[in-house]
Amino acid sequence: MAQEKRHSGVLSPVLTPFNEDLSPNAELLIRQCRWLISNNVGLAFFGTNSEANSLSLDERLSLLEALVAAGLPTERMMPGTGCCAVPDTIILTKRAVELGCGGVLMLPPFYYKGLSDEGLFRAYAKVIEQVADDRLRIYLYHIPPVAQVPITLTLIDMLLREFPGIIAGIKDSSGDWNNTKAMLERFQPQGFDVFAGSEPFLLDTLRSGGAGCISATANVNPRAIADLAATWQQDDADEQQAGLNRVRMIFQRLPMIAAMKAAVARYSGIPIWSILRPPLVELSNAQQQELMVSLDDIGFTMPGLED
Amino acid sequence: MAQEKRHSGVLSPVLTPFNEDLSPNAELLIRQCRWLISNNVGLAFFGTNSEANSLSLDERLSLLEALVAAGLPTERMMPGTGCCAVPDTIILTKRAVELGCGGVLMLPPFYYKGLSDEGLFRAYAKVIEQVADDRLRIYLYHIPPVAQVPITLTLIDMLLREFPGIIAGIKDSSGDWNNTKAMLERFQPQGFDVFAGSEPFLLDTLRSGGAGCISATANVNPRAIADLAATWQQDDADEQQAGLNRVRMIFQRLPMIAAMKAAVARYSGIPIWSILRPPLVELSNAQQQELMVSLDDIGFTMPGLED
Repeated sequence: MAQEKRHSGVLSPVLTPFNEDLSPNAELLIRQCRWLISNNVGLAFFGTNSEANSLSLDERLSLLEALVAAGLPTERMMPGTGCCAVPDTIILTKRAVELGCGGVLMLPPFYYKGLSDEGLFRAYAKVIEQVADDRLRIYLYHIPPVAQVPITLTLIDMLLREFPGIIAGIKDSSGDWNNTKAMLERFQPQGFDVFAGSEPFLLDTLRSGGAGCISATANVNPRAIADLAATWQQDDADEQQAGLNRVRMIFQRLPMIAAMKAAVARYSGIPIWSILRPPLVELSNAQQQELMVSLDDIGFTMPGLED
Repeated sequence: MAQEKRHSGVLSPVLTPFNEDLSPNAELLIRQCRWLISNNVGLAFFGTNSEANSLSLDERLSLLEALVAAGLPTERMMPGTGCCAVPDTIILTKRAVELGCGGVLMLPPFYYKGLSDEGLFRAYAKVIEQVADDRLRIYLYHIPPVAQVPITLTLIDMLLREFPGIIAGIKDSSGDWNNTKAMLERFQPQGFDVFAGSEPFLLDTLRSGGAGCISATANVNPRAIADLAATWQQDDADEQQAGLNRVRMIFQRLPMIAAMKAAVARYSGIPIWSILRPPLVELSNAQQQELMVSLDDIGFTMPGLED
């Protein structure tokens, strides 16, 4: 078998644009994806920061089809396909694999809490069994602050033993470097690709043998983050990392999805980009003001985003 | 307008039976619902303890249709219709109202955490606006230990002001009597019906003017719970309550959905009742043993459940 091309470097959970009536705007989403690809950032659409869990299954399927039909590179796609209900996860994952996506990012079922590793193992196993496609590459999605259902080291071990090759890696959004480090030491040598959940951990992850990062703020700062992933062995790597962190902090201290959408709306000149779906809300005027002043202070731009 | 018949007394989040292949078994569900109705317990199917969040939208729609087609009383139905994504909540709620359900029990969108009251208000408002049916009666579902998204007193107040009549009540599964008490004092006098989330709070809720309880363990102990709701002003009410609590504790100290399913499997003589969908798992042998011994110790039975 030919060496497979695996995901690496930087991916972004692409923001989902909505129309005034709150329906998704596929055309704007395609544009954002093209801009990210032109900045060497892969497409982890349907992530947490994509408001994907506010989209119905049909909406996700339809957007996925639209992105593929637009000619965006499927090998750079890692759609989020983990839903509350395993049957939905199966349908969405199966379609992503059929369309050639290079992987899927899979949340555990997240409504019930205090779950056993055995229960989560069975959920993933059921999806793998029903998708029944050797091309399936699952990146586990560990995001305990939001999902409140952790992916433990024990669970990873159980899954890797049973489904080597299919279980391809993880996005660690725990925000806990000790956890990322444990995964890097224990599983990366087995070819299990560890992605940091945000770029403040990018350099440490790469220096420890990890694959890169999948980060929300790559929606607004793609080029600089991708540059660090490409040049992390250069002397200026720590300086680059410090620059990334400055931008990150501006967004992170505000409601982040709303702040990133406000920035895209501003720099693209397309006001509807600032719309969020309930239960999320847009920035207040004061927050918007704070964001714009902070971005101007550091001379922030988003080249190529404007019409 | 004629006085409307509102939900009151005891309802149960009906357990969902699955076949060996993990598909839902509509026939067994209908049977369980008939048994509950014969014990004077209303049908809050698609609740947390129904594993509803492990069912796809299509599966829920299809089971709803089957229950109505079976001739079960729609005025005693309060299906859970709150999904992660507002478009799904709209579709399911609309269908429930069209079919004549006496109300719906609505979780807030529960993936994103740390939400604002304004964001949750907008989510409920969008559903009400899109369902666009005067017959809609929404019972809010407050279950912070699981959903991790609370329904605050402020949010209830906002919703009641904007949608009086439509916002009909709440199930309080916080397990915090002070919270239930605050809702009873502040909102029950406005005709907002407060249901305790489990029967240990039933008598206190009724004595404080509340509407009843919506409790998982009504799946296994329906008659005794409904009897207390019907006779709570009698002298033996505290004694009845103590009896209910003894049964509740047996189930509550085990993984509760699995324990209730094991009990239904045993007393109905139908083994597939013990199947759960991932990410939940059935009882271990030791847990099963503990349950059966405890039930035998108190001479527990489920009359009328057997074939």
